[in-house]
Amino acid sequence: MMEEFEVVIEKEVKLNKPILIEGLPGLGLVGKIAVEHIVKELKAEKLATMYSVYFPPQVVIQEDGTVRLMKNEFYYWKSGKKSQRDLLFIIGDTQGSSPESHYKLCNKILDVAEMYNSDMVYTLGGFGVGHMVKKPKVFGAVTHKTLLRPLKQVGVSFEKTGGGIIGAAGLLLGLGKLRDMKGVCLMGETHGQIIDARSAKAVIDVIGKILKVDIDTKELDKRAKETEKALKRVQKLEKQRMSVESFPMESESPSYIR
Amino acid sequence: MMEEFEVVIEKEVKLNKPILIEGLPGLGLVGKIAVEHIVKELKAEKLATMYSVYFPPQVVIQEDGTVRLMKNEFYYWKSGKKSQRDLLFIIGDTQGSSPESHYKLCNKILDVAEMYNSDMVYTLGGFGVGHMVKKPKVFGAVTHKTLLRPLKQVGVSFEKTGGGIIGAAGLLLGLGKLRDMKGVCLMGETHGQIIDARSAKAVIDVIGKILKVDIDTKELDKRAKETEKALKRVQKLEKQRMSVESFPMESESPSYIR
Amino acid sequence: MMEEFEVVIEKEVKLNKPILIEGLPGLGLVGKIAVEHIVKELKAEKLATMYSVYFPPQVVIQEDGTVRLMKNEFYYWKSGKKSQRDLLFIIGDTQGSSPESHYKLCNKILDVAEMYNSDMVYTLGGFGVGHMVKKPKVFGAVTHKTLLRPLKQVGVSFEKTGGGIIGAAGLLLGLGKLRDMKGVCLMGETHGQIIDARSAKAVIDVIGKILKVDIDTKELDKRAKETEKALKRVQKLEKQRMSVESFPMESESPSYIR
Amino acid sequence: MMEEFEVVIEKEVKLNKPILIEGLPGLGLVGKIAVEHIVKELKAEKLATMYSVYFPPQVVIQEDGTVRLMKNEFYYWKSGKKSQRDLLFIIGDTQGSSPESHYKLCNKILDVAEMYNSDMVYTLGGFGVGHMVKKPKVFGAVTHKTLLRPLKQVGVSFEKTGGGIIGAAGLLLGLGKLRDMKGVCLMGETHGQIIDARSAKAVIDVIGKILKVDIDTKELDKRAKETEKALKRVQKLEKQRMSVESFPMESESPSYIR
Repeated sequence: MMEEFEVVIEKEVKLNKPILIEGLPGLGLVGKIAVEHIVKELKAEKLATMYSVYFPPQVVIQEDGTVRLMKNEFYYWKSGKKSQRDLLFIIGDTQGSSPESHYKLCNKILDVAEMYNSDMVYTLGGFGVGHMVKKPKVFGAVTHKTLLRPLKQVGVSFEKTGGGIIGAAGLLLGLGKLRDMKGVCLMGETHGQIIDARSAKAVIDVIGKILKVDIDTKELDKRAKETEKALKRVQKLEKQRMSVESFPMESESPSYIR
Repeated sequence: MMEEFEVVIEKEVKLNKPILIEGLPGLGLVGKIAVEHIVKELKAEKLATMYSVYFPPQVVIQEDGTVRLMKNEFYYWKSGKKSQRDLLFIIGDTQGSSPESHYKLCNKILDVAEMYNSDMVYTLGGFGVGHMVKKPKVFGAVTHKTLLRPLKQVGVSFEKTGGGIIGAAGLLLGLGKLRDMKGVCLMGETHGQIIDARSAKAVIDVIGKILKVDIDTKELDKRAKETEKALKRVQKLEKQRMSVESFPMESESPSYIR
Repeated sequence: MMEEFEVVIEKEVKLNKPILIEGLPGLGLVGKIAVEHIVKELKAEKLATMYSVYFPPQVVIQEDGTVRLMKNEFYYWKSGKKSQRDLLFIIGDTQGSSPESHYKLCNKILDVAEMYNSDMVYTLGGFGVGHMVKKPKVFGAVTHKTLLRPLKQVGVSFEKTGGGIIGAAGLLLGLGKLRDMKGVCLMGETHGQIIDARSAKAVIDVIGKILKVDIDTKELDKRAKETEKALKRVQKLEKQRMSVESFPMESESPSYIR
Repeated sequence: MMEEFEVVIEKEVKLNKPILIEGLPGLGLVGKIAVEHIVKELKAEKLATMYSVYFPPQVVIQEDGTVRLMKNEFYYWKSGKKSQRDLLFIIGDTQGSSPESHYKLCNKILDVAEMYNSDMVYTLGGFGVGHMVKKPKVFGAVTHKTLLRPLKQVGVSFEKTGGGIIGAAGLLLGLGKLRDMKGVCLMGETHGQIIDARSAKAVIDVIGKILKVDIDTKELDKRAKETEKALKRVQKLEKQRMSVESFPMESESPSYIR
């Protein structure tokens, strides 16, 4: 990988003006949980893997003892109907780190989406309210006013304005608009500090209605529990972590250690 | 947007050696309030919008539910008289973030100004004194000594030397001088921690006299109050902010969460 | 040095599909101690020196009063047998600093390795457990499952999965895999905060068996003690360090100090 | 200024294999005080000014009300004798900020020095010991052993090894050596936290002997006092500083303030 990004296309497919759906890690992991669930339920297939020098400089040790780089992944789903657009998903371990890299990553994602003639993006995320929410609302934001009405019809709230959307969920809309792409951000109300499957479910329900795709959420609670368990395991592993961190330089010495 | 900056020219105009006037956010928002007020009062028109990977990686949700990227904007005003130079304004949400980006942003602004044959820049800002000021003075700094006399005649004080001017208000002068542009910085005395319309008024009065442009400030107080209200609303919203922040990577796990 | 990296090749040699072995500074200095010991024992020869703008901006004052830049070094060892692959070592003062520079440094190391037709990399490091370990295990991670069996046969443990490997020890595997290189990471169980020759010995024993190279470790304890002494000396010197740090700018003044 | 550095050559001169002498800000300002004093005493002339995006993003307001960018400056002194080499000085407000920029700045300085056929550099700095020193020693470090003897003859101490030299004073030697330039670093023993004219004097005495140039230091104490006064004035000004810092973005609002 010699450049800022490396996109490895794993399958040659033609897509029917796919809608890009983003679920990178963010507040409450709402978007990540939601989009990864949709990918599973629709049995979406892997399209491409993206690596970047802007991702954390580390590998993950997988169950089978092999390692993999930090990555983002594109998945696709073919509707099978001419009248219904295909879907293109972007999920992954991480967003960019620095402000610049956020912009660059999102532009790269949009470059790939445009290669498949996508002209529409949905970004999914959490809307932090700082307390537990029993019945999470779904808040929205759009690139063009014409997109508002159908969203309101399925219950998306637009009462929260004046704030900002940080990271990919916001930039994919803002940068997409500069490329004449339309975009919708759907944010599930969530605590903010806690992984929130309930909020993810609310977002899935809305996007399912909008896209007219039936997404079963029976497995979601189970998966959320597995997620929690997995995360606890990570926190425990953290201490004995296989990290190989950089040391401060040491002195030149008469010994062989430099 | 593939480059560091993207300048979208929205209107083709020819300008008569326009004077560039900068009012980006800074101390007490004095420059921002002043220049945005002048733009309103003169009914200056939008010329171009500038986006940058150096701006915060986020979008703002506007009143109507649509989002927009962080931006800087150029406005222009035609004097209508051959004998009076036109004006070119640069205002916006933000300055650069890193030291380098401050330099790069200012050079980009000067590039655009030079496209319109501008050879003179006024930067407006606040001069922080750490306490409330009833009758704010206006302090000045210039690129060339020949600029001093007319400024002193309209009451600009040059008693404060030995300090620095950080950001666009300073760099546009310093970098402009390298391009043979002349420049003046006008700084209204201000508390520093508080948004200060009174200081903005002092600066507007001075620049109005210098440029021989009549700028009504009746609306300024009203607008400053609206500004205060708007900012309080933001502070309240801040907590329930629609932020989608980047999470640390999680572990590979038997579940679908990666 | 005008570029990001400068590689000074010090000797022209042809190598027989060498195996790259990395021992840059990391947890407990396990990898660094181990690989530098192997280099000494095998009387490996210097191949190249690498400098980088991503290394700390300083020089070291050596015993003889001369200075040298921070560096990484390539050493090589010729097996002398057609049936046995040569070895290529990368050791040095430091890894990259920023996330990006970690990626860039590792790609540069792999570029050099590929110049010599290397298609296999071993990275050596420490596996921090937060307490002293009497009989350190060696944990492993690989790029391809086919690499597991021979490692298990020499006692490498693969019980620790789900964690990450930060820095060169991980990235050389991950980035190497993208280039169709195979890779193995060997991590000696170690405290994490303490320089650990015992853990280095465990790793040396394993890699000696794998590579079928006999590496004497009699000198290791002695060297480890020298290392400790040298490091204490550094810590003492630290206070009276010959550092020439950057000052904040001062004011323009009537004196000659600017 | 569109690039990382802009060097404005102010005078066309030919120099006789000049020796580069560096006195950028560092520990105790020893190097800066020493070299700026030498420049004054020898009546060295301005050769070039260097600006950089890696310098702090600000201008200084000078006594006469005009501003100037942060800068480094090259001065030259012609010995007037064929047998004695000319001198080339680099002084200024600041060194680079990030690790990378330290490397880049030093390479740029060496580029300029090489334009004038310089093949030798002296860097001057402070050697921090953490306490006041009555009779400051001068410690040295060199690029080549052959440089040691003449330095020892004029009393330079080489007892302190094993440490590092951070910033330009070190990198100019290390990077210079890569270009086949010879280099000497002279460090006056100093407290470290206090501006130290006495240590500067010790360094001046040594370099005067080495270069066989007579440098009067009568004015040094006076100047050091002025420096102290000037710095106190700055500290006082700091509070009411004409800084125009970047604000966090505010919300879109019904008012004209964005």
